[in-house]
Amino acid sequence: MTDRYIVGVDLGGTSINVGVLPFDGGTVLGMRSLPTEPHRGAKFVVDRMIEMIQAAMKDARHERAIPEDGFLGLGIGSPGPLDRGTGTVLETPNLGWRNFPLRDLIANGTGLEAVLDNDANCAALGEYWQGAGKAVRNLVAVTLGTGIGGGIVLDGQVFHGASDVAGEIGHMTIDSIGRKCNCGNYGCLEAYASGPAIAARAIEGLDAEGDSLLPSLVGGRLERITAETVYEAIVAGDLYAKDVMKETAKFLGTGLANLINLLNPDMIVISGGVTRAGEHLFEPLRREVRKRAFREGFESCEIVSSELGGMAGVVGAAATFKVEKCGGL
Amino acid sequence: MTDRYIVGVDLGGTSINVGVLPFDGGTVLGMRSLPTEPHRGAKFVVDRMIEMIQAAMKDARHERAIPEDGFLGLGIGSPGPLDRGTGTVLETPNLGWRNFPLRDLIANGTGLEAVLDNDANCAALGEYWQGAGKAVRNLVAVTLGTGIGGGIVLDGQVFHGASDVAGEIGHMTIDSIGRKCNCGNYGCLEAYASGPAIAARAIEGLDAEGDSLLPSLVGGRLERITAETVYEAIVAGDLYAKDVMKETAKFLGTGLANLINLLNPDMIVISGGVTRAGEHLFEPLRREVRKRAFREGFESCEIVSSELGGMAGVVGAAATFKVEKCGGL
Repeated sequence: MTDRYIVGVDLGGTSINVGVLPFDGGTVLGMRSLPTEPHRGAKFVVDRMIEMIQAAMKDARHERAIPEDGFLGLGIGSPGPLDRGTGTVLETPNLGWRNFPLRDLIANGTGLEAVLDNDANCAALGEYWQGAGKAVRNLVAVTLGTGIGGGIVLDGQVFHGASDVAGEIGHMTIDSIGRKCNCGNYGCLEAYASGPAIAARAIEGLDAEGDSLLPSLVGGRLERITAETVYEAIVAGDLYAKDVMKETAKFLGTGLANLINLLNPDMIVISGGVTRAGEHLFEPLRREVRKRAFREGFESCEIVSSELGGMAGVVGAAATFKVEKCGGL
Repeated sequence: MTDRYIVGVDLGGTSINVGVLPFDGGTVLGMRSLPTEPHRGAKFVVDRMIEMIQAAMKDARHERAIPEDGFLGLGIGSPGPLDRGTGTVLETPNLGWRNFPLRDLIANGTGLEAVLDNDANCAALGEYWQGAGKAVRNLVAVTLGTGIGGGIVLDGQVFHGASDVAGEIGHMTIDSIGRKCNCGNYGCLEAYASGPAIAARAIEGLDAEGDSLLPSLVGGRLERITAETVYEAIVAGDLYAKDVMKETAKFLGTGLANLINLLNPDMIVISGGVTRAGEHLFEPLRREVRKRAFREGFESCEIVSSELGGMAGVVGAAATFKVEKCGGL
């Protein structure tokens, strides 16, 4: 099977990543990354994606002897919600698209058969196929970034639910009268543990806190504090920043305990910038989960950091094609 | 297939129910119900179960011409947690059993092949096979009683997770610093919407409330108020009791919205005494879910009352045998 290849395309609000995966997995070939630049319009973004795909295939051919018909097709991971059946992106605030027939535009532009799935689902399937979850049966992947995304993989397949919106872990309520979330509700996990939420909580707490490094790291302009600044301060030994991370771990731990009590997965894979906090995050996180989850569920669930990192989307997009068009991984 | 039958056994802390199901579903034959009386010891309970199974089979033979080898086997639903592989009940506070080899004791006593699963899982599978969920693909069943149990059915199979404890919906945190739960944690759904939690909230709120019927329904002895009393008061038009139910619906709605955002099921089936409140529960419940769940998820999920009621456990226990030993429903 080593002369068969699948292209993986990871479309994000900030960047587009494209790579070529051998059918049986392994090293990603012809990897490319460019900014999305959605302000230049949908046609620009689609053309850029097509050029990147063609360039990645050309590069892959230089590295391996791939026959003409060696590229089976391509998988695309996109921000959602989307309609997998028609390959349409229903709505993406970051890209400004509505009911956009992304799959067929890319398929027509490249001459390859294409499938479309949610970016968080692709990342979860990528970790299952080639990353942290290679040896497990069921996993949940949680991506902590500007928002909190999630993907559920059961027995080697993404679980999509009735209308392709399963896995919205960021909008699980953990405090029914808690912090306001961007989605309009109150108390969603995302309102506590996303990057912007970590920054907001850090800034709020500073009012009562005299001796943190955070203000000096942003030249006193507190509105410039981001989750990144909090990690920087932790690395510099700042106790207040460590407390902010501990609190983040408690909120996130509540959400993960809910996942475990409900789905009893073999593994939860965490990805995103926040994992850079390492054991400052994972140690209090596991402690909170142990406190809140059923013992059997906690003991049978590994909570780990992503292995593929930023590559999960590309690997998982290719995996999505393999699952849907080639009968499974 | 109409000459093939499966026995369903529903073991609860209060009562044992047994019935015989035709292989392709339909009317339950030879139905029996007796109190469990766990204080008389495990041997008593097991002997009673075996006698009930034999009596139910005898009755079924009177009703239908069932050949000697017409009984394929039996399914047992039991309080958990349990080990399905060994057929062992690991722990049941209500029955006082630990590491109890229930499946094999019943199999040996009846001469029938047996399978064991969690009672809430059986109830969910029963609704899927013969009840409210007959036409759907994925459903979650939520049983509101002394505790809150849950079962997840995906594509005609109970989803068990890594260590057979998936579906513990009652211990989903909805308020991370909220009410203390029997499990030791804070803010579990069960601490708000189980029968005893409804009663406790009703009693607490009475302090500030002058004109409810509740005190008079229990002769002024407030500690006697149960969830039943709250339904009685609603039927009698008591506004305070209606408010207690509305509040219950809000808490439950938060939990169901979490289920929908995570699993995007086609249907959520609610069972247990609290469903007797009818639209006093369901109307505010759906309203809260609509507020908190993603639109696509809410619109594709029916929230309905159980169709099988107290029979779900027996029907589902038989269905469990069919899934595990006969290749599916």
